[in-house]
Amino acid sequence: MGMRSVFYRNLEPSAREHGISAINFAIVLLVLASFLTFSLETEPAISRDLRLTLSGFNILIVSVFAIEYVIRVWIAGENPEYRGWRGRLKYMFSPFALADLAAFLPELIVMVAFADADGGAIAALKALRILRLLKLARFVPAFSMLSNAFARCASQLAVALGLALALIYISAIALYFIEGDKQPDAFGSIPRATWWAVATLTTVGYGDSYPVTALGKFVAAFIALAGIGVVALPAGIFASAVSEEMNKDKTGKDSSGD
Amino acid sequence: MGMRSVFYRNLEPSAREHGISAINFAIVLLVLASFLTFSLETEPAISRDLRLTLSGFNILIVSVFAIEYVIRVWIAGENPEYRGWRGRLKYMFSPFALADLAAFLPELIVMVAFADADGGAIAALKALRILRLLKLARFVPAFSMLSNAFARCASQLAVALGLALALIYISAIALYFIEGDKQPDAFGSIPRATWWAVATLTTVGYGDSYPVTALGKFVAAFIALAGIGVVALPAGIFASAVSEEMNKDKTGKDSSGD
Amino acid sequence: MGMRSVFYRNLEPSAREHGISAINFAIVLLVLASFLTFSLETEPAISRDLRLTLSGFNILIVSVFAIEYVIRVWIAGENPEYRGWRGRLKYMFSPFALADLAAFLPELIVMVAFADADGGAIAALKALRILRLLKLARFVPAFSMLSNAFARCASQLAVALGLALALIYISAIALYFIEGDKQPDAFGSIPRATWWAVATLTTVGYGDSYPVTALGKFVAAFIALAGIGVVALPAGIFASAVSEEMNKDKTGKDSSGD
Amino acid sequence: MGMRSVFYRNLEPSAREHGISAINFAIVLLVLASFLTFSLETEPAISRDLRLTLSGFNILIVSVFAIEYVIRVWIAGENPEYRGWRGRLKYMFSPFALADLAAFLPELIVMVAFADADGGAIAALKALRILRLLKLARFVPAFSMLSNAFARCASQLAVALGLALALIYISAIALYFIEGDKQPDAFGSIPRATWWAVATLTTVGYGDSYPVTALGKFVAAFIALAGIGVVALPAGIFASAVSEEMNKDKTGKDSSGD
Repeated sequence: MGMRSVFYRNLEPSAREHGISAINFAIVLLVLASFLTFSLETEPAISRDLRLTLSGFNILIVSVFAIEYVIRVWIAGENPEYRGWRGRLKYMFSPFALADLAAFLPELIVMVAFADADGGAIAALKALRILRLLKLARFVPAFSMLSNAFARCASQLAVALGLALALIYISAIALYFIEGDKQPDAFGSIPRATWWAVATLTTVGYGDSYPVTALGKFVAAFIALAGIGVVALPAGIFASAVSEEMNKDKTGKDSSGD
Repeated sequence: MGMRSVFYRNLEPSAREHGISAINFAIVLLVLASFLTFSLETEPAISRDLRLTLSGFNILIVSVFAIEYVIRVWIAGENPEYRGWRGRLKYMFSPFALADLAAFLPELIVMVAFADADGGAIAALKALRILRLLKLARFVPAFSMLSNAFARCASQLAVALGLALALIYISAIALYFIEGDKQPDAFGSIPRATWWAVATLTTVGYGDSYPVTALGKFVAAFIALAGIGVVALPAGIFASAVSEEMNKDKTGKDSSGD
Repeated sequence: MGMRSVFYRNLEPSAREHGISAINFAIVLLVLASFLTFSLETEPAISRDLRLTLSGFNILIVSVFAIEYVIRVWIAGENPEYRGWRGRLKYMFSPFALADLAAFLPELIVMVAFADADGGAIAALKALRILRLLKLARFVPAFSMLSNAFARCASQLAVALGLALALIYISAIALYFIEGDKQPDAFGSIPRATWWAVATLTTVGYGDSYPVTALGKFVAAFIALAGIGVVALPAGIFASAVSEEMNKDKTGKDSSGD
Repeated sequence: MGMRSVFYRNLEPSAREHGISAINFAIVLLVLASFLTFSLETEPAISRDLRLTLSGFNILIVSVFAIEYVIRVWIAGENPEYRGWRGRLKYMFSPFALADLAAFLPELIVMVAFADADGGAIAALKALRILRLLKLARFVPAFSMLSNAFARCASQLAVALGLALALIYISAIALYFIEGDKQPDAFGSIPRATWWAVATLTTVGYGDSYPVTALGKFVAAFIALAGIGVVALPAGIFASAVSEEMNKDKTGKDSSGD
């Protein structure tokens, strides 16, 4: 068994029956650490020392992701589908390979070519780091179950979401007519009243806008009572679908031995 | 196959086995766009140019809905039930046809007859645009499933809602007695305390009123802990009923081939 | 069929197979109206005229409830269990009869004997009006299903509630140690921090107290993410139990013909 | 039957088929009372008298727990596994025995050895009282069912939690770019925006930070609508798993007679 085969079995999740290899687990941790790094870098209150440490750590992350990418292209040849130069090109345009590329290339370009530049352009390029989330998709076996559950209840979800949006719209219009004159800043137009309606019906309730008249409070209370059901419905429908998908899976596994 | 038949098959949802025709999809988008137009028109901060564009777009929407209405009355003859002049009259008083009429007629009257008038009367007429929501009902196949689910758990829903209202009422009375003297604005009467109780038990929690005494906070904490269960119950019951209705549907379809 | 029998069949819910008689429906409405009256009477902003109307309406309600009570005692004789004077006494100490008595007697005593008195004692007696809620229990056929569902998941509910309380307690201690020095008013003792923990974990979030330090916010965010699951769990468990109880009922009815 | 056997049957929960003995119930109440004592002791507003009473009560609690511990070590010999000196040592290192020890030893050491000391060290030692929660685990029969339910949906829970964290992260980045310049205190860095994202997506909504620009409100409304589903999902998945675990239990008991 050659070196490439050893790497393949340790880096390619589909080469294992279950679980995650130590190397891939380290990569997952590195992706999460890179998110933390990105977050902390934006915080003006952190010390200069920590900032330098973060920059260094960032170079490390980009290097590891670049090396990982090269290795993954190399070992792709273990899979008959990606053998030879044409196979490698095909692999490089597969979704996972593109995600791996996006995870380090923009950052690498900034480091090498725009080291002296600063400002919005770099911030925007750095925001591409969020694509590293896609690197994680490779390691999530239960993801397909969730998307099955989604497909299972898609039309119900659409109807429930439609009901929620209709309720938000009607609520906003109602409060716009009732409180618009009294509180022009919060309810002086339907879009403004919509902000209140969303904050209320999702039960977030920031408290930056709420009705003050007796009629407004009465209608808002009625809307809130009716609305929590409607707006919480999609989550309930989805959770039920997931639960059924789990049961189906279990039944499938139990009977697979027959 | 005549022109009328072609229109019928593209405009009448029940003439298709599933999905939605391109024309009807455009109408759905137009209805949603008309809601957006209505919302933006009420916003004082938008520019004069955008306002003119919105007015023009509004004329377009009303025209399209008027033409759609005439065509729908014409093609209704494809359905044996609505053939001839008597059939057409019958169609015009069907719920969907009335919804189509309400979607453009008030607006058209305002445009033609009251172009110079302004103020509350027109705003009220414009508020009738909300009836355009009914235009959408024609295209929602899963709507009947939701209403079945509702029927399936109606009595439980009623009990759960009754419990929620009873809890709100008892909570309001309790806080009225405890905090009424201390905070007359927020808890000085049962209706005022009810506003707090609804905001708390729906977990909206605007923060415009909350207990400040030790006893008030203790009772409110107890109520909040007990209440989230009771007030979230209707949504849970309904979601379960929807999930069962979905299962029944699936079973029905699976066994329909036997 | 005598007069008493007619009254019995119209007033005693168990004498009907399903639904509610017109008289009983009117009584339910009257109970609800009496709650509204009680609420409005406490509001200082209502006009003197409305207050007089409410007082008059209140006398009407108390009279109707008194007459209803007498009639119910009279017609109880239709039920063999409550026949004769001993039976009537037995009926008068049944829970429903006591609820009917409590619904008008305290109020009647205030009207007749303490018409001139005012203040806290009368307010407290009026608060007994809340016992009128018990009058409604007689008309709620699905109530037994809810109590079955409760019994079905009581031990799980207890565990889930215990977990929720434990989480609230631990959260309060954590934030007391982290933010106690910084914000003595909001987190200066465990009871104070508990108020924050309840408001946060129930997702009410009034905004009267929240962490301000970086560590406090980090811990609070972690608690909030973990907590919504734990505190929402009892409602989910209960809703599932209700849904199963509903299914059992349906199955029971479907197979009762066998 | 000796004295030790009587104690064993009254103190060891596994010696009873179901329910909880009077002595154990008293211990549970005492643990709960000790939590209340700890809470009240931290409150600066309580009177000196109450503080003295609490101190006395605390000495009582510690004494009872110490005696309980000694008795439990003694009666452990009823169980063949813990017979003799080696068995007792084995018992003393069992999780429940360690929890019993932790419930009084730190407190006892403070009382005896550091009676004159005060400040942070003692407060930290007192915080160990939270370990008394573990004393309660012995008496919770349904705890294993909850942990089974957790195991049953662990991978789904992990995915759902991962989705929630990803959504929070993406939301924070979005609002950081949109509102960061306008509100540096609330959105000036990703960690700061994360605090807003957590407060919003858990629907806590303190109201200490919220978007103020039109674009920020639009994006936040979209996030809130999408997010309540995603963040409420873990609770729904877990509740479904618990409900199924309950059903399995019931089926298991029903068929156990076969």
